[in-house]
Amino acid sequence: MEIVNFSAGPSALYKEVLEEAREEFLSYQGRGYSIAEISHRSPIFEELLFETKARIKRLYKLDENFEILFLQGGASLQFAQIPMNLYKNKIEFIDTGVWTSRAMKEADILQANYEVIASSKDENYSYIPKVNFSDNIDYGYLCSNNTIYGTQYKSLPKSKAPLVIDASSDFFSRELDFSNIGLLFGGAQKNCGISGLTLLIIRKDLLQEKANIPSLLSYKKQAEANSMLNTPNTFGIYILSLTLKHLEKIGGLAKVHELNQEKAEILYKVLDASDFYQGYSCKEDRSLMNLCFKLADEKLQKTFLEEAEKENLLFLKGHKELGGIRASLYNSMEKKNVEKLADFMKVFEKNFS
Amino acid sequence: MEIVNFSAGPSALYKEVLEEAREEFLSYQGRGYSIAEISHRSPIFEELLFETKARIKRLYKLDENFEILFLQGGASLQFAQIPMNLYKNKIEFIDTGVWTSRAMKEADILQANYEVIASSKDENYSYIPKVNFSDNIDYGYLCSNNTIYGTQYKSLPKSKAPLVIDASSDFFSRELDFSNIGLLFGGAQKNCGISGLTLLIIRKDLLQEKANIPSLLSYKKQAEANSMLNTPNTFGIYILSLTLKHLEKIGGLAKVHELNQEKAEILYKVLDASDFYQGYSCKEDRSLMNLCFKLADEKLQKTFLEEAEKENLLFLKGHKELGGIRASLYNSMEKKNVEKLADFMKVFEKNFS
Repeated sequence: MEIVNFSAGPSALYKEVLEEAREEFLSYQGRGYSIAEISHRSPIFEELLFETKARIKRLYKLDENFEILFLQGGASLQFAQIPMNLYKNKIEFIDTGVWTSRAMKEADILQANYEVIASSKDENYSYIPKVNFSDNIDYGYLCSNNTIYGTQYKSLPKSKAPLVIDASSDFFSRELDFSNIGLLFGGAQKNCGISGLTLLIIRKDLLQEKANIPSLLSYKKQAEANSMLNTPNTFGIYILSLTLKHLEKIGGLAKVHELNQEKAEILYKVLDASDFYQGYSCKEDRSLMNLCFKLADEKLQKTFLEEAEKENLLFLKGHKELGGIRASLYNSMEKKNVEKLADFMKVFEKNFS
Repeated sequence: MEIVNFSAGPSALYKEVLEEAREEFLSYQGRGYSIAEISHRSPIFEELLFETKARIKRLYKLDENFEILFLQGGASLQFAQIPMNLYKNKIEFIDTGVWTSRAMKEADILQANYEVIASSKDENYSYIPKVNFSDNIDYGYLCSNNTIYGTQYKSLPKSKAPLVIDASSDFFSRELDFSNIGLLFGGAQKNCGISGLTLLIIRKDLLQEKANIPSLLSYKKQAEANSMLNTPNTFGIYILSLTLKHLEKIGGLAKVHELNQEKAEILYKVLDASDFYQGYSCKEDRSLMNLCFKLADEKLQKTFLEEAEKENLLFLKGHKELGGIRASLYNSMEKKNVEKLADFMKVFEKNFS
């Protein structure tokens, strides 16, 4: 059955990745066992881990100042783990919705001192505040793409303090200038793999020992142990590796970004040409990853979702926080499938307006 | 290639599980998408989660006093997370080697008050101390099976205080009397799935709120959220579910235990009949999961491993802590493959003694 999967996360993987993983699911590299069935300390897995790190470094053009960590617990555990490791005196947050609020809640639990320097709560998070962080703070925290509202930073704030960025929903979707970035992190399950794996890119000078942190939660200890203080999510790292290999094959992050722009443009064009559909986020901050909109006649929304499902256009329901429709167009979404949705939307408008 | 995988963890999965997962790897239940590609909040995944819980309850015959949690971070994160959630005044430990020592180290980091009531360190952890915990403690901590040394509790200490048991390496390998158990936990990657998933069975009265714990690390919050405070390891839960389904199909834990006894017996018989091989653990505490032994002539060990590998008997090298040979015979190990190893050992002895 040919379906189109618009799920916001966990989300569609590249078909090529799924097929390669299936091909060698019982026999990794023809060895007679699955990659999931061997020790993380075996040279076979260690090679995969090093190769995955090298791919990340190549894709983001990282220099030797950055370390890569493969952790567990999702971005939500990072909301606590980041202040546990990096907080000394003061954090600054830019509040762009649920995910940054959750990060603040964990900072509260840990009794960290922080300031919210800007928030788009006044317009229910439909835009990205354009502000810069102070110089003399431990780090400035932001979420680069907000899945729920469909907003995304087009450029990062300039900052002398290290930026800490929740990139869960736009990881590997474009090139990034790492000169201000201290820590880029996210769950793998949206743009680069399956759930249960958290990826961190961290500037090495931030790997400092702090007292009384559980060993497993210490970035420094994990870095020293090559992310293998204990058994990492080996199958998750494998799927990440296949995904990154595919990204390199199709031309790297500049090319991926170009494709993502083309895909989003197709849908935003439909939204902009219509009064029947209403885009949610302000135009200049529109996400290339999650396109959120409502039907002007909200009573039609249920019908829209039902009719879409009949056409095998799946998981288009918006987040419960916002309602409406959400089409997630992560890297793996094919252009032809975005066109299918655009065509469906035009036909639906014609039939129901 | 027909190989036999004796890896201590991550370890061999049931072939039936791997084949079923491969079969529907691109199309879960014929739906046109992988189980790894959908939201954990979707009814399709929620059904899988509830079904998995129900299987665990049936297999261990658990009553309504127990909750099941699907977490991340491995058993090693639990070494810290357990005292974070359960510690009030005092913990008691039984020290049976590296894994209990690691748990104590994390209790040290958290400055918890504890006592080691017994240790087998005096004989390099080759036996299980037979002691009981005090009544008036928060919990008594032990590791039911010690992978490195090949020791295993045959029966659990009687205790009025709740037992907290690291069952990473003998989860679902036998029936257990839960009347004294407060918390049974372990990584899934040895006996019940792939790495990146931690399974907890916890007595509900122990789910109490404690201040200043990161939300993701709170058992109570996770229980209230049905293990979905954030995205769990969905693919890991899927593989766990397939594994448990298989365990039910072959007759449940009593039957699994019987098979495990038969398999271990085959190898222990070879060890006992020989001076060429020397079993490590004391006889009464011998593990059914990990069989550790040395060659009397240690110079022959490298040759043993090389010759075994030629026969496709893989990953038999002992843990670096102990050296020697280790054959891990988890649930999924087939009896005929244990016989292959036994035959190989007899031939090797004949050829090299």
